[in-house]
Amino acid sequence: MKKLLIASTSTLHGSGYLDYLLDELIHFFKSTKTIVFIPYARPGGLSHEEYTKIVQKAFRKIQKNIIGLHEFEDPKQAINQAEGIFVGGGNSYVLVDQLYKIDLLDTLKVALDSGTPYLGTSAGSNICGISMGTSNDMPIVHPQSFETLGVLPFNINPHYLDPNPDSKHMGETRETRIKEFHCYNKQAVIGLREGSFLSVQGKQITLKGALNARIFEQNKTPYEIEPDSDLSDLR
Amino acid sequence: MKKLLIASTSTLHGSGYLDYLLDELIHFFKSTKTIVFIPYARPGGLSHEEYTKIVQKAFRKIQKNIIGLHEFEDPKQAINQAEGIFVGGGNSYVLVDQLYKIDLLDTLKVALDSGTPYLGTSAGSNICGISMGTSNDMPIVHPQSFETLGVLPFNINPHYLDPNPDSKHMGETRETRIKEFHCYNKQAVIGLREGSFLSVQGKQITLKGALNARIFEQNKTPYEIEPDSDLSDLR
Repeated sequence: MKKLLIASTSTLHGSGYLDYLLDELIHFFKSTKTIVFIPYARPGGLSHEEYTKIVQKAFRKIQKNIIGLHEFEDPKQAINQAEGIFVGGGNSYVLVDQLYKIDLLDTLKVALDSGTPYLGTSAGSNICGISMGTSNDMPIVHPQSFETLGVLPFNINPHYLDPNPDSKHMGETRETRIKEFHCYNKQAVIGLREGSFLSVQGKQITLKGALNARIFEQNKTPYEIEPDSDLSDLR
Repeated sequence: MKKLLIASTSTLHGSGYLDYLLDELIHFFKSTKTIVFIPYARPGGLSHEEYTKIVQKAFRKIQKNIIGLHEFEDPKQAINQAEGIFVGGGNSYVLVDQLYKIDLLDTLKVALDSGTPYLGTSAGSNICGISMGTSNDMPIVHPQSFETLGVLPFNINPHYLDPNPDSKHMGETRETRIKEFHCYNKQAVIGLREGSFLSVQGKQITLKGALNARIFEQNKTPYEIEPDSDLSDLR
């Protein structure tokens, strides 16, 4: 049975890396001692080693071991044998490009579909959707495709940001961008504000955290949903 | 001799489409009666016809005819014979995807290199750089490549936005994103604030408008340059 925790962000303003999620993670990873961490999104250009150290430090607080996927000789075998998986944020293009280069997407999908607990934050959440087409990141490398894991039947927009009514900036708002997405793509998009996450248990998908989320469906007016809303039927 | 006007945005807050540029455009297009407009970036999902009408209305104020490229049977011939070219903003992925699909990039580059006056705004400016890798847009379609015209020896980040010191949003700042770009790409990037534009006359590249621009070079601290700065040697 699928078991996913899909978070908008790793870090809330004013608190440490993953701090706001730790209580949830104790429960989520209760049968997991060692988590395989995929550091490929390289936030700020960090090396895989540097990024993995940050994650190790955070998970030490809840007594979990973290091994970076870059440390394994055979990444597919590492994923197949993992007790738990975490894909952290950074740049979605870099992450997806690397996943294609080492041909890991199918392996990851099989692991997730068969019940390996998976935590994603930001770019690591974005790849759970049908495509990375609602990423906020810069296209700093060119992946061979934007198709991603599709373990959710819709797309994620992490770090969802409401328009600032006081802004004089004329660049597109997030809502405008997602409207443009729907000129070319059919799947629904959930705008997950920082602090929100999705809990997936089998086919059950639930919004968690203290905030509403914003739902964008093709040819519909966007709407808000409250925490604990059931998203299992969103397409 | 190359003759380009490369603007961060089409529209300033509180004024109409292209209004702030009209005086400049009278001078820039003084030998041009008819401008071929490329509407492919489709802002907000507008049709090519709708977008072209907006542009026609703006250019009527300075007595210029606008013909949308989608109205021509042979787009390459239209570009080869154009007296002037304007590529408007919208979504860079959609624009670049369409330019590749109809194999127009080389034709456009030849026209620009041989002196056809070219106006770009936003996505239409982004494609003048070496790549679209510093676009702010959402990857709503997958172009076969991110390489663009390269009529400038560096990259453009249009609608450049300074970090908001009061923000509690943890999504990456524009500066962080461009730093990540430089982990994978060597070319300099110019962050053009809304209201800024580049004037290109042959090999001479000059910052115009009232605002400073921000320059990002690989392995250097970003720095500000003032209006009328010479950018001809930026790489």
